Amino acid sequence: MKKQTIKEILQDYKKVLHHDITVYGWVRAFRSNRFIALNDGSTINNLQIVVDFENFDEELIKKISTASSLKVVGEVVESQGAGQTVEIIAKKIIILGDNFTEELQSTILQPKKHSLEKLREQAHLRFRTNVFGAVFRIRHAVSFAIHSFFNKNQFFYINTPVITGADAEGAGEMFGVTNFDLNNMPRTEEGEIDFSQDFFGKKTNLTVSGQLEGETAAMGLGRIYTFGPTFRAENSNTTRHLAEFWMIEPEVAFNNLEDNIDLAEDFLKYVIQYVLDNCKDDLEFLDKRFEEEQKSKPEKERAKEGLIEKLQNVIAKRFKRVSYTEAIEILLNSKENKKGKFVYPVEKWGTDLQSEHERYLVEKHFECPVVLFDYPKEIKAFYMKLNDDNKTVAAMDVLFPGIGEIIGGSEREARLDVLKQKMADMHVDEHELWWYLDTRKFGSVPHAGFGLGLERLILFVTGMTNIRDVIPFPRTPKNAEF
Amino acid sequence: MKKQTIKEILQDYKKVLHHDITVYGWVRAFRSNRFIALNDGSTINNLQIVVDFENFDEELIKKISTASSLKVVGEVVESQGAGQTVEIIAKKIIILGDNFTEELQSTILQPKKHSLEKLREQAHLRFRTNVFGAVFRIRHAVSFAIHSFFNKNQFFYINTPVITGADAEGAGEMFGVTNFDLNNMPRTEEGEIDFSQDFFGKKTNLTVSGQLEGETAAMGLGRIYTFGPTFRAENSNTTRHLAEFWMIEPEVAFNNLEDNIDLAEDFLKYVIQYVLDNCKDDLEFLDKRFEEEQKSKPEKERAKEGLIEKLQNVIAKRFKRVSYTEAIEILLNSKENKKGKFVYPVEKWGTDLQSEHERYLVEKHFECPVVLFDYPKEIKAFYMKLNDDNKTVAAMDVLFPGIGEIIGGSEREARLDVLKQKMADMHVDEHELWWYLDTRKFGSVPHAGFGLGLERLILFVTGMTNIRDVIPFPRTPKNAEF
Repeated sequence: MKKQTIKEILQDYKKVLHHDITVYGWVRAFRSNRFIALNDGSTINNLQIVVDFENFDEELIKKISTASSLKVVGEVVESQGAGQTVEIIAKKIIILGDNFTEELQSTILQPKKHSLEKLREQAHLRFRTNVFGAVFRIRHAVSFAIHSFFNKNQFFYINTPVITGADAEGAGEMFGVTNFDLNNMPRTEEGEIDFSQDFFGKKTNLTVSGQLEGETAAMGLGRIYTFGPTFRAENSNTTRHLAEFWMIEPEVAFNNLEDNIDLAEDFLKYVIQYVLDNCKDDLEFLDKRFEEEQKSKPEKERAKEGLIEKLQNVIAKRFKRVSYTEAIEILLNSKENKKGKFVYPVEKWGTDLQSEHERYLVEKHFECPVVLFDYPKEIKAFYMKLNDDNKTVAAMDVLFPGIGEIIGGSEREARLDVLKQKMADMHVDEHELWWYLDTRKFGSVPHAGFGLGLERLILFVTGMTNIRDVIPFPRTPKNAEF
Repeated sequence: MKKQTIKEILQDYKKVLHHDITVYGWVRAFRSNRFIALNDGSTINNLQIVVDFENFDEELIKKISTASSLKVVGEVVESQGAGQTVEIIAKKIIILGDNFTEELQSTILQPKKHSLEKLREQAHLRFRTNVFGAVFRIRHAVSFAIHSFFNKNQFFYINTPVITGADAEGAGEMFGVTNFDLNNMPRTEEGEIDFSQDFFGKKTNLTVSGQLEGETAAMGLGRIYTFGPTFRAENSNTTRHLAEFWMIEPEVAFNNLEDNIDLAEDFLKYVIQYVLDNCKDDLEFLDKRFEEEQKSKPEKERAKEGLIEKLQNVIAKRFKRVSYTEAIEILLNSKENKKGKFVYPVEKWGTDLQSEHERYLVEKHFECPVVLFDYPKEIKAFYMKLNDDNKTVAAMDVLFPGIGEIIGGSEREARLDVLKQKMADMHVDEHELWWYLDTRKFGSVPHAGFGLGLERLILFVTGMTNIRDVIPFPRTPKNAEF
């Protein structure tokens, strides 16, 4: 790329000091008709442009306002003012695009503080704000760190299908995909909708997980991961749910549950360390934002740690590994449970854990990330390996402070007979999954994997609280704008 | 990762020579009851396991056959035979999973040559073959190279929505997405289907391109790229079309058409060089396969270059940049056109180019990749920048040997009034794209981008000829298995 970004100019300013350079960007502020804060999206930091109005046409200066786009030629000099190392003494300014000042007033680009809700309604413009610039630059860094981690460790990226004919996993309600004219669908003689005439010759849905297909790939390539969109047609209008979100699902041949937990821990620590190393400015901005936000809360609800401190702490300690059975003991004996402080009291072994229980374990009891493993078979999916106790499966959940479950995974059931029995018990159709069963017939091997919801991890890393604010164009009930 | 892959063992064999190690994999062949070729998917190369049958139970040896999965402990020694540097003298062999020998005979895992069609029907097993192992390892390398290129150049990865309420770009027929029970859809008083009661409160489709949303992100973050699934509900049962495929769409603020062409050229060369550097063994295997395939063709139809040679040549030369107008002149004056050898004769300026014309330019006339630019406005999309001649738009297509168009892009129309006029001329709904128009109202800037179909590039790099063979689970008319 021939053009220099503002990030490059500020980082390597010594290379351009006292030279004339050309910069491009949008005006974030124009102070005293003299100082322009120019931003091009490459960094949260603005480049200060100094305009000596005597050298410029008055009409031009008048036209420059917040959100204007400019091309500026000028000399890089050491800055006199506080807040920046260098600035540009403008020699030539070209306005690239007009500003519709009146309409601008109703947008989030006007210079005042907006609520996150208001910013969300203008998702196409919010990329230009400090908060969302920081969030989406970090989202990029997290994504790149994920690919880098797996590439370093000899995993192969596999694109599992988005449109699927399978409806077997039961991870959630699915969206239908069709090419029918809904006003005029072909019918069978019995009056049923004739899906054999639809595009794919059968009923199809949007995937809820690439795991089962991913397992078949791992049975050939050894170590694979998916990184793609997944969907839930659930009418959950909460700060934690999206109808369309991105999932990462590694699957590793020859790995057992312990290997799987090791992988999850190494993986999360690598990604978080990468963000700490590569997104310093954006993190510092979000750290301050997080601190401000905490101040507005009642003291009891405030976070114990700052954002960056929290990330550092997660990396510093080994995750605590606790069996489900131990966890239930801890919860049963906890003051919280005895005093009835849980909304869902813990009564006995076998009950599914709620978010409040997970957070108690992580935030109060162990004060570090916790990996729970060996869950009762009844509350986990059919493909998880049955343990020798015949009561539990080799499942694992990684629980993070403030967020609860961030990773869920398991060693898979590699024995054909046991898998078939579990499918029968849990009413999963064998015929539909003929191909999945095949992998247990011809050189079946122990293997394990997990799923990570990308947006959950971005929430954790950015300190944002609404999942709609960490994906560029959120899809939620009654909302598919843009 | 604690376990060593066969790739690591073979690459760094000096570290383990004369040591006992543990390896895992699937049997590719078991020769003379003595030599096992073990593969774990990490590389196309097998690790030879030497079995002295006197040291092992006869029953165990009998059970080992093609497709068996093994855990082997043994000593790494220098190999006596040809074809490998080191081998393992087995001390302990554990069979990990049973083989259903009878069923195995009907699968592609039996030891004989299978047609690509047959392999495609068992997409869940074909990862274990040499061809598909190589193809999917290269697909990973290409994907990682793409992310690396953009990350190095300060682009941010943006996930544009898969489910979209917009239907405006008109890049192709779209699949509908719905949560309705199709047997019982709510109706308005007028008897129309009441989409306001569907999940998103409106009619929604699967995206055909993330470009328009990507542009809005580039208007804040500067340089962005998408890498995600896109969809076409077109009934094209060809070797070149998929209903679900992966697209990469970079978009860059402040770039003009020439910058855009430079970016496309740098990008393609980086990715191809990366594959040459990182996928040597797989490329050599595919190179031989390609050569064999050419031998079975009539001499006139054979490729001039080998696979690796072709990749090296693409990198070596600067892409030839030719305006559409020049290209039409060349085609009009070509022997092929004059002698009526084109299926679609070229008659005048303004006609759209067919694949045969593109391939003539690349393979016969210039003998190198060609970038065509400045196309007639009538045959290109509404969002492309109108040139000063008022006849052409700042579009560009990159044409590759053997494949035709591999990249299509343009500088975008940044002027609101011109864009609106073009939308009116081409019947694109302004109201639906209110958010897209907003980016031209508040600090509009010149910008440019392009789209690359991932599978087209993988076809080119691997020498495969059917697009269904370069995506793990192809989606085509009447086919959504797995």
